[in-house]
Amino acid sequence: MFEDKNQGRTSLSELGEFKLIEHLTQFFSLKKTTTIKGIGDDAAVLSASDKETVITTDLLVEGVHFDLSYMPLKHLGYKAVMVNLSDVYAMNADAEQITVSIAVSNRFTLEALEELYAGIQLACDTYNVDLIGGDTSSSTKGMLISVTAIGKANKEDIVYRDGAKPTDLIVVSGDLGGAYLGFQVLEREKQVFEVNPNNQPDLQGYTYVIERQLKPEARKDIPRLLKELDVKPTAMMDVSDGLSSELFHIATQSKVGCKIYEEKLPLDPQVISTCEEFNLDSTMVALSGGEDYELLFTISISDYDKIKGNPNLTVIGHITKENQGLQLITRANQEIALKAQGWNAFNK
Amino acid sequence: MFEDKNQGRTSLSELGEFKLIEHLTQFFSLKKTTTIKGIGDDAAVLSASDKETVITTDLLVEGVHFDLSYMPLKHLGYKAVMVNLSDVYAMNADAEQITVSIAVSNRFTLEALEELYAGIQLACDTYNVDLIGGDTSSSTKGMLISVTAIGKANKEDIVYRDGAKPTDLIVVSGDLGGAYLGFQVLEREKQVFEVNPNNQPDLQGYTYVIERQLKPEARKDIPRLLKELDVKPTAMMDVSDGLSSELFHIATQSKVGCKIYEEKLPLDPQVISTCEEFNLDSTMVALSGGEDYELLFTISISDYDKIKGNPNLTVIGHITKENQGLQLITRANQEIALKAQGWNAFNK
Repeated sequence: MFEDKNQGRTSLSELGEFKLIEHLTQFFSLKKTTTIKGIGDDAAVLSASDKETVITTDLLVEGVHFDLSYMPLKHLGYKAVMVNLSDVYAMNADAEQITVSIAVSNRFTLEALEELYAGIQLACDTYNVDLIGGDTSSSTKGMLISVTAIGKANKEDIVYRDGAKPTDLIVVSGDLGGAYLGFQVLEREKQVFEVNPNNQPDLQGYTYVIERQLKPEARKDIPRLLKELDVKPTAMMDVSDGLSSELFHIATQSKVGCKIYEEKLPLDPQVISTCEEFNLDSTMVALSGGEDYELLFTISISDYDKIKGNPNLTVIGHITKENQGLQLITRANQEIALKAQGWNAFNK
Repeated sequence: MFEDKNQGRTSLSELGEFKLIEHLTQFFSLKKTTTIKGIGDDAAVLSASDKETVITTDLLVEGVHFDLSYMPLKHLGYKAVMVNLSDVYAMNADAEQITVSIAVSNRFTLEALEELYAGIQLACDTYNVDLIGGDTSSSTKGMLISVTAIGKANKEDIVYRDGAKPTDLIVVSGDLGGAYLGFQVLEREKQVFEVNPNNQPDLQGYTYVIERQLKPEARKDIPRLLKELDVKPTAMMDVSDGLSSELFHIATQSKVGCKIYEEKLPLDPQVISTCEEFNLDSTMVALSGGEDYELLFTISISDYDKIKGNPNLTVIGHITKENQGLQLITRANQEIALKAQGWNAFNK
């Protein structure tokens, strides 16, 4: 950790662009029957389908979205895919293909990119998606990754952000705040390392929150679970910028308000203990942390019995009329207006 | 030209990421019946279709692919779309949607991005495609644009690179080498300007080649023309890296050789005169220039009568057996082995 363990030194200009793509993707196989043509032509080709197609894209920029001093390249590749698959699952769709484009400065070697693509491949294999295209370029500084994910769903299954209705329950998968705390722990250790490079970080006690930051998993299981439970959410999105910010999106697009309950926010014990150590309010962290890649959705109250007691799902509040605004009910039973504190790449 | 005419000074951090996307895309309308949901959810949604989907993506990086000292931002936005649409048309498909992601340093103002998106919008309107998604981020240096284009075609119409057969004719649309010479003219004027900023460039006599560089047009008309002529190419790709490099792709993937004839290469008179002025060999420029975004394709010799005399199309040679390699027949009737001199982003 915090060291360049990369021993290989093959410069990218030795290969050239075409050979580079070929080389990096040589061990990727196509698994989906819907992929007719992957990498190697002007464009990839996907089969005709009676399902609808969902398409999403996200950029990850070094120094803005990730720090390679503690983010291993393999993890970065994996995470870049997760961030996009998460958006597909948030439509209640299944992810099938991705394209990956990278721009890298000459500080990166071929061996470094192999690590990155090993992470992308692991993500493709684990989530059963095909890498079907992309572009590689040099950059004048740093690394940038642009991923586009393509998914499929039956028309009647797709869930938008604008369908939440008053009295609907607000549900979140998994738990919140871990990724943000993992980031705090890693930033602290980076600073310790910069002062004393011989100091080996002791990360025991933070394994869960660090994994949430470095190796997030998209909730592929949730659309499937909801289908099994015969529940179609009225609105859904993924928690990438922070719960509070996401609630604002659903409220604005659905033209509703909401009430969420502080005591209901799902927190891992390690999130609570790390918050105490860092002197952070765990509710604030859960509301504004971001990067958890859980799914936030609303369901009709008549579906409550179907999800009740499911360990993957927590009801955290309910939808209200638009004029009631967005409220947090504290443990002391006070109402506090929520603020959209989404993460802003331009204010970093 | 060569001046910052941008008077606006609104910094990007004043808006934040969500408002920025909203702001930049507020005047974009959705035109395609296949676009069910554009920007504003976790993912865009496209309707089910009995056609196949083609998907392609390209990165443009400042300092590698473009130089803002002579590339106006509006043109850059337009060109970033063209580069991708060209790949869709090269599959013999029709382009329907694009996503655009940008990463920009804080040197760019809101007004600068408005210019960029004005060019993207002009491209969308002119080529009848919908902007359906994207991402915006800050970067630590410069500007990067990542575009993904989505198109549709009937299964039987899609043309790959691997179907060329011996005796097939090799055809190219439009003319070659202009974009490269436009680049040479602009680079020369930039250097003159750097020595003497009061020197106003005289670009008369170069309007065609400069337009080929700054405002290329993707050949949307060619798939349509081929359909009208009842010609299905056996292989096709677009000329982005240079004719020579593209011929190597078709030859390798189709397992064939080819002969092309120097005297047949389509050159605009301005390409010839500019080559003379710059002391460049016009054949080399046509073979290796790149960025022309013309379509290169092969057709069965039995289709020759259908395309004969069409002013948009030039037969430049024919396909041979693989063991004959790739040959240029010069005006002096000499055979010279072609070299793949594609553009390499890592050798710049």
